[in-house]
Amino acid sequence: MPAHRPTRQPVATNHPYRLAARGDRPDTIIRVGAAALPIGGDHVTMMAGPCAVEDRDALFEVAEALSRTGVGILRGGAYKPRTSPYSFQGLGEAGLELLAETRERTGMAVVTEVLAIEDIELVARHADVLQVGTRNMANYRLLDALGQAGRPVLLKRGQGSTVEELLCAAEYVLAAGNPDVMLCERGVRSFEPLVRNAFDLNVVPLLRELTHLPVIVDPSHAAGRSDLVHGVAVGAVAAGAHGVIVEVHANPEAALIDGDQSLDLDAAAMLVDSLDVIARATGRAFTRATRRVAA
Amino acid sequence: MPAHRPTRQPVATNHPYRLAARGDRPDTIIRVGAAALPIGGDHVTMMAGPCAVEDRDALFEVAEALSRTGVGILRGGAYKPRTSPYSFQGLGEAGLELLAETRERTGMAVVTEVLAIEDIELVARHADVLQVGTRNMANYRLLDALGQAGRPVLLKRGQGSTVEELLCAAEYVLAAGNPDVMLCERGVRSFEPLVRNAFDLNVVPLLRELTHLPVIVDPSHAAGRSDLVHGVAVGAVAAGAHGVIVEVHANPEAALIDGDQSLDLDAAAMLVDSLDVIARATGRAFTRATRRVAA
Amino acid sequence: MPAHRPTRQPVATNHPYRLAARGDRPDTIIRVGAAALPIGGDHVTMMAGPCAVEDRDALFEVAEALSRTGVGILRGGAYKPRTSPYSFQGLGEAGLELLAETRERTGMAVVTEVLAIEDIELVARHADVLQVGTRNMANYRLLDALGQAGRPVLLKRGQGSTVEELLCAAEYVLAAGNPDVMLCERGVRSFEPLVRNAFDLNVVPLLRELTHLPVIVDPSHAAGRSDLVHGVAVGAVAAGAHGVIVEVHANPEAALIDGDQSLDLDAAAMLVDSLDVIARATGRAFTRATRRVAA
Amino acid sequence: MPAHRPTRQPVATNHPYRLAARGDRPDTIIRVGAAALPIGGDHVTMMAGPCAVEDRDALFEVAEALSRTGVGILRGGAYKPRTSPYSFQGLGEAGLELLAETRERTGMAVVTEVLAIEDIELVARHADVLQVGTRNMANYRLLDALGQAGRPVLLKRGQGSTVEELLCAAEYVLAAGNPDVMLCERGVRSFEPLVRNAFDLNVVPLLRELTHLPVIVDPSHAAGRSDLVHGVAVGAVAAGAHGVIVEVHANPEAALIDGDQSLDLDAAAMLVDSLDVIARATGRAFTRATRRVAA
Repeated sequence: MPAHRPTRQPVATNHPYRLAARGDRPDTIIRVGAAALPIGGDHVTMMAGPCAVEDRDALFEVAEALSRTGVGILRGGAYKPRTSPYSFQGLGEAGLELLAETRERTGMAVVTEVLAIEDIELVARHADVLQVGTRNMANYRLLDALGQAGRPVLLKRGQGSTVEELLCAAEYVLAAGNPDVMLCERGVRSFEPLVRNAFDLNVVPLLRELTHLPVIVDPSHAAGRSDLVHGVAVGAVAAGAHGVIVEVHANPEAALIDGDQSLDLDAAAMLVDSLDVIARATGRAFTRATRRVAA
Repeated sequence: MPAHRPTRQPVATNHPYRLAARGDRPDTIIRVGAAALPIGGDHVTMMAGPCAVEDRDALFEVAEALSRTGVGILRGGAYKPRTSPYSFQGLGEAGLELLAETRERTGMAVVTEVLAIEDIELVARHADVLQVGTRNMANYRLLDALGQAGRPVLLKRGQGSTVEELLCAAEYVLAAGNPDVMLCERGVRSFEPLVRNAFDLNVVPLLRELTHLPVIVDPSHAAGRSDLVHGVAVGAVAAGAHGVIVEVHANPEAALIDGDQSLDLDAAAMLVDSLDVIARATGRAFTRATRRVAA
Repeated sequence: MPAHRPTRQPVATNHPYRLAARGDRPDTIIRVGAAALPIGGDHVTMMAGPCAVEDRDALFEVAEALSRTGVGILRGGAYKPRTSPYSFQGLGEAGLELLAETRERTGMAVVTEVLAIEDIELVARHADVLQVGTRNMANYRLLDALGQAGRPVLLKRGQGSTVEELLCAAEYVLAAGNPDVMLCERGVRSFEPLVRNAFDLNVVPLLRELTHLPVIVDPSHAAGRSDLVHGVAVGAVAAGAHGVIVEVHANPEAALIDGDQSLDLDAAAMLVDSLDVIARATGRAFTRATRRVAA
Repeated sequence: MPAHRPTRQPVATNHPYRLAARGDRPDTIIRVGAAALPIGGDHVTMMAGPCAVEDRDALFEVAEALSRTGVGILRGGAYKPRTSPYSFQGLGEAGLELLAETRERTGMAVVTEVLAIEDIELVARHADVLQVGTRNMANYRLLDALGQAGRPVLLKRGQGSTVEELLCAAEYVLAAGNPDVMLCERGVRSFEPLVRNAFDLNVVPLLRELTHLPVIVDPSHAAGRSDLVHGVAVGAVAAGAHGVIVEVHANPEAALIDGDQSLDLDAAAMLVDSLDVIARATGRAFTRATRRVAA
């Protein structure tokens, strides 16, 4: 199911994002975690887990269930940037330790957000992929520092940023020495009151043309409501995305943050099945992690 | 590949779009043209053709080629609303006659835009589906009059309209007596300079939940550039859309209007193949018209 | 308080809005109603009245009060385009007759909306200015017909339309023979939940540069809440707008439509005073109508 | 020229921005620089200067000229966050030293941007007001650290942030111990191609109601073109803003960054005059610094 592709030329040496630009380069494939799970190219990936790490049992329950369906990468926030300074800001280092413990027990790779330069080393010790959130996409000092983090970076688009600004933000990390950047589209601000953000599907094939970096989508934050997540995830992967990152909670109604947009475990398992179907229909393969759960 | 669906309740009698609302209703399936091609439900449809009807030979060439690939519905504008009063406004009645002649020769159904109440009768005589363009989505007098047009209506979302406004606009047609309305998402205004509009993929599963009417997408106007059309079309159908309407031109570079966003004939044929694959992967069927081309 | 103005050149003959464009033309001044009230140039105008005409006594009460403060132009909707077909759509012809009667009693000029070609003659008989609402800005057939209406037109910007699209819409009226078009900025869609629309102040000086036509602003629809109307109205006039059109109701809480954004009579009187101050501070004059109220 | 004001109530103790919220508090007045120039309340302020500090002579020329017209606060960037990592990023510490030297020679206060926690101490030594740019509005760790900076903060709205998000960002600084925060509206992303951002005038009276903090506007970044700056600045102050921050360059065409939106010296002087007129017309006073230029 190939689409038209323009003939590819080498990147101009004065291009504003000359390392991130597609030019005549093949897709970058990034290897994640101890299992070296591939992201990019013809691999379709699902990362899933709770918005915030809340407690050991809940985290392990959701990780166990996801791992059983073949999800190889666990998401979960230890440091949560919140609009109001008085909201729950995550468990911090204790949350990181729970993530690392769950990683150990399940064999899953872990992706979690890093908010500041001074946290990079600590977070990199507990996680396999460092996420830069939408609020920090243009925090260029942080991006610079991630050039030396020794871990792949998942860079989310700013909620009011253009595609070119996203690519230039990635360039900060690349230019500082880290070639392993995944882009993450999570929607931008729009006037529609029924959804949280506008998830412009144009951006998926556009990014696939403009860059060789892997393109991940976050339908949970794009939609802001769980009933739309399946459709958006499937559609974005059919349009060319390399994978999704979704919020999953064993009991969404009890989640401290973002329960409205979290899938429950059954819905997550159904999404795995659908992504597998779509990956095959489009000539790719869903990356199904080998499960390793402690007896 | 079924997604979670909430339990469906009957529509409240004071609902602002009580006829268009999903409630506990099954999908509406609309039959189009002499061949009674089904739109909606588990049918996936492709409508295609030039932005504007330009001349007999060009129209017939593209219709012939599309018909050969299995496309059953021909689009083409005879009345073109243009931003400046000094731009080419379409061939008018002569364009309608060319559409009707091509319909006769190919057996395709025809969809074309109607701009004003005084044109409805004439357009309905030459076309099988009456399109209301983005500029007229909230021209309620026109919508009222289409309630008695005796033809299905393809209603495009206004470029600054919400989903609820689109559904209420459809309600004007339904309430005036015409049950055959297809909704068409063609993107809304956004700040991204690299594409023409933002095509919020959330809207596809959202409309599928909120209404029983068929949901068509227009990736040509959404993207405004032909290289993104395939990805957007495939993604939207995977997310649940019932079909696409795309601009196709035998020689896009020579098109009088919208050449940049028109597929050529090869790209159109590839899109048919891809939609067929996606339809089957998602448990549906691509509606392939029986071809009838004059010897 | 003059700002920098570029040297003005004649308009190019192939300009997309060659009649509306500023070129080297002075400001157009439009005369409205029996009193020939001037709009444009160095005149600052306030049009005010209820969103919808509801009943004779309420309309006369608000008109009387406004007239007493020096407001010379009464607004009020007889035909109300509403999002849902089941909402109150205005009194229609009965509303027009109440407007005409109030015009007779107070000597005020009347501005009211026209929704369709077939209503133009009737509305023009009862009103002095014909308003085209935001939903119909790109209803080009209606604009064409208004070229022969024999009345000035107040053309509101579409809620998802660009400035150039607004100017081209005005061009349809001008090119059809009516030179008396006032542009009205009423805000466009935005993501901010605390207000109804985004009122981009840039648009005021921008329109003053791009066109010679009068520029009116509608802070009631821009803000959607009455507590912001005074600030927006004053600021827009200070930035160069020729006037405002505001919703005023003797008892906003009882209004059938848009009560939240309507000023009460005291607030309207305060706004008149403020606009008078700003007009003088910027070297212009507030147009204070001579009052004529029946004994 | 007073507008309606709702009766003011104390702030609820669980309000998401309980320190920034208006409640029943009077306007906060912040004193800036050696001359303790007042910002907020009935004072109208103009901050002006080049986008980036480029060289000693150019900086001193523009500062001298501005100081002569009564502008008391000099803006200029030493650390410039740029979309591409390969663009000019400012002179850094050398730029700060030039700002401090100019401050010494002219008696002006200095406002300049701080990009990261590790720079706060250095920047605070050379500047009187620390600016947080639009890209860092939600960099909460930086905001936290500014709570102990010992300098007033000028906090710009993120280009895709809501008003409530801006107020909550200010709350981070306030809650960390610094009561001196000025909010700065510089426009948000919009679909209009003729201007850089949408400057929603509603936001000015809205912020005046929601908070007691000073409200500054940046018409240079809002418009992105110098010919609109005067109108936007004057309109925003008339609508209730406490002041403006504008880009001024002795030779805009030679500016390294943002020349298109910079006023020249004559235009800057005209803006001072206009703001003085508007301040008086609205019952306030333009803060005209006593000039001190070395012989």
